[in-house]
Amino acid sequence: MRIKENEMLDKFIEILLSRGFDQDRAKESATNFVNNSIDGMYSHGVNRFAKVIEFIDKGYIKVDAQESIEQSIGAIEIWNGNLAMGNLVATHAMNRTIELAKLHGIAAVAIKNTNHWMRGGSYGWQAANAGCASICWTNTNPNMPAWGSIEAIIGNNPFVLSVPRKNGKHVVVDMAMSQFSYGKIEELKLENKELPVYGGYDSNGELTTNPAEIEKTLRPLPIGYWKGSALSMGLDIFASFISGGLSTPLIGKECESEYSICQIMIAIDAKQLSNYEASSNQIDKTIEMIQQAKKISEDGEIRYPAEREYKTRIENKKLGIPVNQSVWNKILTL
Amino acid sequence: MRIKENEMLDKFIEILLSRGFDQDRAKESATNFVNNSIDGMYSHGVNRFAKVIEFIDKGYIKVDAQESIEQSIGAIEIWNGNLAMGNLVATHAMNRTIELAKLHGIAAVAIKNTNHWMRGGSYGWQAANAGCASICWTNTNPNMPAWGSIEAIIGNNPFVLSVPRKNGKHVVVDMAMSQFSYGKIEELKLENKELPVYGGYDSNGELTTNPAEIEKTLRPLPIGYWKGSALSMGLDIFASFISGGLSTPLIGKECESEYSICQIMIAIDAKQLSNYEASSNQIDKTIEMIQQAKKISEDGEIRYPAEREYKTRIENKKLGIPVNQSVWNKILTL
Repeated sequence: MRIKENEMLDKFIEILLSRGFDQDRAKESATNFVNNSIDGMYSHGVNRFAKVIEFIDKGYIKVDAQESIEQSIGAIEIWNGNLAMGNLVATHAMNRTIELAKLHGIAAVAIKNTNHWMRGGSYGWQAANAGCASICWTNTNPNMPAWGSIEAIIGNNPFVLSVPRKNGKHVVVDMAMSQFSYGKIEELKLENKELPVYGGYDSNGELTTNPAEIEKTLRPLPIGYWKGSALSMGLDIFASFISGGLSTPLIGKECESEYSICQIMIAIDAKQLSNYEASSNQIDKTIEMIQQAKKISEDGEIRYPAEREYKTRIENKKLGIPVNQSVWNKILTL
Repeated sequence: MRIKENEMLDKFIEILLSRGFDQDRAKESATNFVNNSIDGMYSHGVNRFAKVIEFIDKGYIKVDAQESIEQSIGAIEIWNGNLAMGNLVATHAMNRTIELAKLHGIAAVAIKNTNHWMRGGSYGWQAANAGCASICWTNTNPNMPAWGSIEAIIGNNPFVLSVPRKNGKHVVVDMAMSQFSYGKIEELKLENKELPVYGGYDSNGELTTNPAEIEKTLRPLPIGYWKGSALSMGLDIFASFISGGLSTPLIGKECESEYSICQIMIAIDAKQLSNYEASSNQIDKTIEMIQQAKKISEDGEIRYPAEREYKTRIENKKLGIPVNQSVWNKILTL
């Protein structure tokens, strides 16, 4: 089934209002869930919504809380998320980062004690829409073994990088440090499919493409093996160090679930660059050259980062957002 | 054989002086090569030195050139490397980034038209030694196919992230976007060894651990397959867009070899953070927790990023730097 974006937005607003959000905050948060879904990131949009409501009902996400500034040092601010709604805190943090970048050229906001931001890429789009290049990332609870370990102790810490394009088809990289999310692994298991490449370890300690085995061992694979493990640690230590919040191992130790996490947003105001016009044209040329490189198969394609999201957005805006019937039925009961 | 660091430094200075560098610049550049070697990064230290001299002799690296500032916007500066010695430009850029970060909290220098910076991690260490957390990366010439392509059109674009620790054992991630460098692939081929995990494609288009096959197809694998491909594109487009320099596909088209590349340095002054002491302690705790996680094998180890470099540094400072006899003999002829 497909749900029109306005219908989904109204439903999400209604549910958020029922949990005590005021009209503005309900609308802003709901819009983030809907936009993530429009762009095809259902796992951090419509498919995640019920779980977020559960986190609200359990008190992990504080409806009445809002972010506060702990410290301001020139072009960087340190915020406390105060366990408020994660996508609101992150949206506000990126807004402030953009504002500071317009003043200082480059700026950052680091946030401690916040909640899941849903889809990281949405903040990359937000920056790019404001004419900024951006980098941001979040830490998570422990969900992946470090290289050399069999115990989930590091996070998959999604990392986002965006560059604005004048045609609105921004370059947005949005990737977790695990080769596959547990959501993807679960999905393929239910479809009785194998992963396309190794995604973790089986019960014998061997690399496997079998999703059920990875769910059993809880040993998903970092991208690039030892490399993704190192980058995951680095991102976690960087974000928790600057924000003063909990690192992934400490979230695992001190929190009942995935909350009190850290994020960092960095933006550069591209519109002030004297090379802005020429550099913008060069992006188009660069993407064209990459896409015209010799392909593996004649009917194959080479995509630039976020090309698919842009196409899905156009389709879903026209046709409505594809939703699994049971997911939507569940939402209607919230 | 092992060469004492002072002997190596004197030799490198002597050779750089013979190519026309003045005393200060020769010493500064030579120190970078020696320090990279001391930390065990021979491929971007002693083993690379002869190739850099070749680039100087060919005129790709301009001995008399120095970086110049193209634009200054608050906390960010755009530089032209003017094809000067890459490790000098990068060291000066990180110095300036640190200086600006002390003023603005966060800062950046983006450089166009520069040369290979040798070991990216050295700039992470430089920032961390000055009490800054840092992110920096470089683009490269085309050396890896994009996902979906069989033609080298994107770069392996090494990415660096560092966090300072009070004990000097800084966390420094330094990783290229390819699973293995061509240097590593060549090394294992000569030893008749297989790669430990898939490193590229063979002549039949299948994933392989055979280094000779990858040298034949020139299809090394990005870390995380499509993910590393996307991140490589994002890093290249970001750095070339902000600096106004050439992107990887355009370097491939317009340059005879790997020169006129882009780099970006970002630093945050950690010492101004009100949570500096507590956050510093938390890094130690975090690393301890990760290293105490259950290991794959009892005698195995879980390393934090740059742990090995720190240990190698102590060893090489004491015993001298291990150098292949033929590499050193070649250097003695330069």
